[in-house]
Amino acid sequence: MSLLVVGTVAFDAIETPFQKTEKIIGGSGTYIGLSASFFYKPIHLVSIVGSDFPTETLQYFNRKGIDTEGVEVKKGKKSFFWSGKYHMDMNSRDTLVTDLNVLAEFDPVLPEKYSNPEFVMLGNIDPHLQIKVIQQLRKRPKLIAMDTMNFWMDQTPEALKEVLTMVDLLIVNDEEARQLSGEYSLIKAARVIQKMGPKQIVIKKGEHGALLFQGATVFFAPALPLEEVFDPTGAGDVFAGGFMGYLSSTNNRSFTNMKRAVVYGSAMASFCVEKFGPQRLTEIRRPTIQKRVSEFVDLAKFNI
Amino acid sequence: MSLLVVGTVAFDAIETPFQKTEKIIGGSGTYIGLSASFFYKPIHLVSIVGSDFPTETLQYFNRKGIDTEGVEVKKGKKSFFWSGKYHMDMNSRDTLVTDLNVLAEFDPVLPEKYSNPEFVMLGNIDPHLQIKVIQQLRKRPKLIAMDTMNFWMDQTPEALKEVLTMVDLLIVNDEEARQLSGEYSLIKAARVIQKMGPKQIVIKKGEHGALLFQGATVFFAPALPLEEVFDPTGAGDVFAGGFMGYLSSTNNRSFTNMKRAVVYGSAMASFCVEKFGPQRLTEIRRPTIQKRVSEFVDLAKFNI
Repeated sequence: MSLLVVGTVAFDAIETPFQKTEKIIGGSGTYIGLSASFFYKPIHLVSIVGSDFPTETLQYFNRKGIDTEGVEVKKGKKSFFWSGKYHMDMNSRDTLVTDLNVLAEFDPVLPEKYSNPEFVMLGNIDPHLQIKVIQQLRKRPKLIAMDTMNFWMDQTPEALKEVLTMVDLLIVNDEEARQLSGEYSLIKAARVIQKMGPKQIVIKKGEHGALLFQGATVFFAPALPLEEVFDPTGAGDVFAGGFMGYLSSTNNRSFTNMKRAVVYGSAMASFCVEKFGPQRLTEIRRPTIQKRVSEFVDLAKFNI
Repeated sequence: MSLLVVGTVAFDAIETPFQKTEKIIGGSGTYIGLSASFFYKPIHLVSIVGSDFPTETLQYFNRKGIDTEGVEVKKGKKSFFWSGKYHMDMNSRDTLVTDLNVLAEFDPVLPEKYSNPEFVMLGNIDPHLQIKVIQQLRKRPKLIAMDTMNFWMDQTPEALKEVLTMVDLLIVNDEEARQLSGEYSLIKAARVIQKMGPKQIVIKKGEHGALLFQGATVFFAPALPLEEVFDPTGAGDVFAGGFMGYLSSTNNRSFTNMKRAVVYGSAMASFCVEKFGPQRLTEIRRPTIQKRVSEFVDLAKFNI
């Protein structure tokens, strides 16, 4: 029993209208792993870093139940670095720097103990690598979920199409769903994407909540209206981590349980945006999360 | 017992990326009244039209339980006319023509039987006129709700501030709430607006649902994800009409009941956008509405 997480472990430098950071820890694998670790252990993390990446951070991951045997450390090389600047509305951003560094050589090899997970979350990386990970699995997991982004739709559309046929669930945001499907209506977009492979689709709409599709059934999950979004970096990955962590911990793929998982994912994302980078994830505890989930219940509850 | 509705009864010409209309019936009073008429009778409508306005339409209103004694017919004058063109995303539009015509002379005088309503919905008109209507009420209604728009915030800010102190509930969209409050966060915006007068605020977010605020309590209502939005004209007014019609029919201003009213309003709006102008409102029946409301229940239901 394990949750396999593939994604980047990296450095980010973030600028918002309010403040800016120096290099801080980031990467989709970091956010997904930390978020999922509140719900489920062990998490088997597959990634790559340079020798500039702090050992203490990997040790911190381990203490959180994140196994880092699958995180390759490239001696004498630098970790992936991304720098971005958010616009005033916090909904859009400009990428200032993308230094691939070790990511250019990423060739994920699953350690033996990683090869039989029950749940798999493929973070947003080159779809060729997502395929490579799936091909190393010894048996079909209960659920394979993946994220992707516009870059791969433009650059590697064939590989993206192929990996979509291999997964059960796609987690993307509204703009990505629109680009991937060529449909503006999210209902139509989901239907088109379902034909590409994944039976279930989560479309994240940021402050407007999220939609979960399975067949013709839809669930509309609210987002907590926030006074302030301090830093949106990683919120989508934290959503995915909470979602997959909750699913893994309950070991239940029913639509009813997936709806709960969307709410847990949304709750985790609502914490993430409260501080820079993954900072808030290092502060919260399980009761804080449970309290936040209750707020979601109260927020959306009505009876006719 | 009555629901007093003040708003325009007018002609619209609408162009969408898909189709365009000649002059059709429109106006906030039309949309609010027709929508509310599914829930509650009598509706006392206050408006003004020219002699070009079809008598059959006013008779149709009467058959729907909308009293039109308060609709002044100006002989030899033309009705208010608005023409607009929607952009591809259907979320924004350009106004092509605004012919005020009789609206420039609108000076609402309530017929005697209109002067003691239990519920009042002030559609989006000059706040001076909204004040004038309130001043003619013989006693304090159970609930006075109002709509407004950016135009009045720019042109008549003082009158708008005054009428806001006289009402219980404000229904606006997200952009209007932001402009009125000067706050981007809708949570902060609602708090600022509450200090201006209305204890309750509904912020409509179109395809992203609606938020209902009362004190520090928030309700997040979903919107039905639609395959196609054919014509958004009037959807906001139809929301308000369904909301106020439902509240009037249940005669219950509790927050729990207001949440239901938001769902009924959202259901009504989801019909409105399916065809041009108010067309769809002339086709649906109460069981169709109840079925749509059940879809909202299913859409948003989860248990933790």
